[in-house]
Amino acid sequence: MTRLRKLMSGLALAMVVTASATAHADDQDVIDYRKHIMKTLAEQAGILGMILQNKAPADNLATHAQILATTATTAKKAFEPNVVGGEAKPAVWANWADFSKRMDAFVAAADELAKTAKTGDTAAVAGKVKELNCRGCHTEYREQKK
Amino acid sequence: MTRLRKLMSGLALAMVVTASATAHADDQDVIDYRKHIMKTLAEQAGILGMILQNKAPADNLATHAQILATTATTAKKAFEPNVVGGEAKPAVWANWADFSKRMDAFVAAADELAKTAKTGDTAAVAGKVKELNCRGCHTEYREQKK
Repeated sequence: MTRLRKLMSGLALAMVVTASATAHADDQDVIDYRKHIMKTLAEQAGILGMILQNKAPADNLATHAQILATTATTAKKAFEPNVVGGEAKPAVWANWADFSKRMDAFVAAADELAKTAKTGDTAAVAGKVKELNCRGCHTEYREQKK
Repeated sequence: MTRLRKLMSGLALAMVVTASATAHADDQDVIDYRKHIMKTLAEQAGILGMILQNKAPADNLATHAQILATTATTAKKAFEPNVVGGEAKPAVWANWADFSKRMDAFVAAADELAKTAKTGDTAAVAGKVKELNCRGCHTEYREQKK
């Protein structure tokens, strides 16, 4: 092998390595983005649960409900790229019509929750939290990792 | 010890155990509540970083900035109870005037960020993200656990 061919071969290898590293990073980015969103939802749902159990101050009940509702509006887009990984089951994309419908229902339920929370009626809020039906979707579409 | 005294003694012990378990749970609740808030901020800041690096879609840039800004308004209240633990250093309460002032500055900077994000000018948004100055406060007041 000439010195030039060796160099070209090395460059080609470097390009392949770079390209595959980039492709991997892209998929990981998709996963990371939706994880950031789902974790935000989990943190805020956790807060609502604490408030309803009198374990956290209720002063910001409406604000936390609004954060949850606003975050909910960003979730579906984050799942649009068909990238299995993280805790998303392949069923998300195999049953996209159903998943998408459930996501829309979740957004609507979170919006109802935020409106109810503005009234400060915690009993009504507790009912609206149940209607978010997190578990319903997680059972079908989430593979919870430890 | 009579049987009655034994029973009373056992009851008293049970009451002490219950009371201290409750007190402990209360402190843990305080810690859990502020952790939920700080984690929400971290998730949304992570998203903003991804968007600015073109690793996540920019469609919801303004929404994510708004979630961060709204969450920021809930943070100071969560630190009001003087309960060391989680990742909060005792300095939070030893230097409350400074901590409080920085929290107010953070809320104002996050609000500026949210307003800027509505323009879609990502370069301007990047500047506003720096002004959040997360690290400034974390260096003084956060003991990061692994």
